[in-house]
Amino acid sequence: MPQGKPEVVPDDGRTTRQRRNRPLVVVHTGEMKGKSTAAFGLALRGWNQGWSIGVFQFVKSAKWRVGEETAFLALGKVHEETGEGGPVEWHKMGSGWSWSRKAGTDDDHAEAAREGWAEIKRRLGEETHGLYVLDEFTYPLKWGWIDVEDVVHTLANRPGHQHVVITGRDAPQSLVDAADLVTHMTKVKHPMDAGQKGQKGIEW
Amino acid sequence: MPQGKPEVVPDDGRTTRQRRNRPLVVVHTGEMKGKSTAAFGLALRGWNQGWSIGVFQFVKSAKWRVGEETAFLALGKVHEETGEGGPVEWHKMGSGWSWSRKAGTDDDHAEAAREGWAEIKRRLGEETHGLYVLDEFTYPLKWGWIDVEDVVHTLANRPGHQHVVITGRDAPQSLVDAADLVTHMTKVKHPMDAGQKGQKGIEW
Repeated sequence: MPQGKPEVVPDDGRTTRQRRNRPLVVVHTGEMKGKSTAAFGLALRGWNQGWSIGVFQFVKSAKWRVGEETAFLALGKVHEETGEGGPVEWHKMGSGWSWSRKAGTDDDHAEAAREGWAEIKRRLGEETHGLYVLDEFTYPLKWGWIDVEDVVHTLANRPGHQHVVITGRDAPQSLVDAADLVTHMTKVKHPMDAGQKGQKGIEW
Repeated sequence: MPQGKPEVVPDDGRTTRQRRNRPLVVVHTGEMKGKSTAAFGLALRGWNQGWSIGVFQFVKSAKWRVGEETAFLALGKVHEETGEGGPVEWHKMGSGWSWSRKAGTDDDHAEAAREGWAEIKRRLGEETHGLYVLDEFTYPLKWGWIDVEDVVHTLANRPGHQHVVITGRDAPQSLVDAADLVTHMTKVKHPMDAGQKGQKGIEW
């Protein structure tokens, strides 16, 4: 709620405006649907602010998020043609990162994930985007492919005003500790419990 | 995960495909951010499927969701101009429903909420949309402005293939019971706990 009052006013010598404009690290975790969808909903707001949106999907299947990808690429085109909103870049690991000249990193998911993180780190250093969505990024962290402490340190020291949203189950505790906003998506009821499989438009 | 296996295969005489294509009632509840953002993320997928998207905001402030509204209206325009995706309608209670000829229903929120529900009920009967987002709809239910049993009965008997996503805190139990998919957004950490107020692009 935009008009919410903070529960605590910290004694950190910063004005409310300075605190208000602090860039955020947001984590959406938990076992239930909604982690990525909420991240993309947040990216809609960022797009409307004219921020550069960078999406990095750390998933194997290129089929995932195709609905969101199509919609965001359409919004990026709206920006190009009319100046409305912000530019959009959408990168996915599944078929090899689009910037990569290496063929066949696809076979080595750990290497591909590390390559993705190296690129994001570079972009954070150059302040490329206003909002980063690191979709399913908790998995390469969980599996030890990418060093969590490197991520935490990089995020803590990123320059400028860059928001970062990270999604996926089992977010590491040190990432949760480092984040400003953490939501756990908790299952109350899921159609698969009643024998229903995924369907287009809902699951992808 | 699209390839997930259902835990139970029900003995209801329907094929997997019939079950798969069953339209869903989805509820996003809980105290944390992400309920509406996840609903709009879901609407992105629906848009990409070419479904007609109908958003109905049961909120007082016209400022809320302005980022999502702008982005979705841009997507609606993309559809009009290129045929990509689906059409989008966005209605909000705050400034009086756009279809309403009554002036000043704004002063009576209960009446305005009932008017919104009556219109949604009419549209469900006519199969107007493929996906409905009833944003913050749990509040008029909670406050007794709209009869929960009427909503549950209407949803259970809606014709065709219409998905309905309802957001807001404190979803009534009978709505949860009637829903196919229910996610509770649980707070792990929020910037307001550290004295930070809401900021543009993140909260709205």
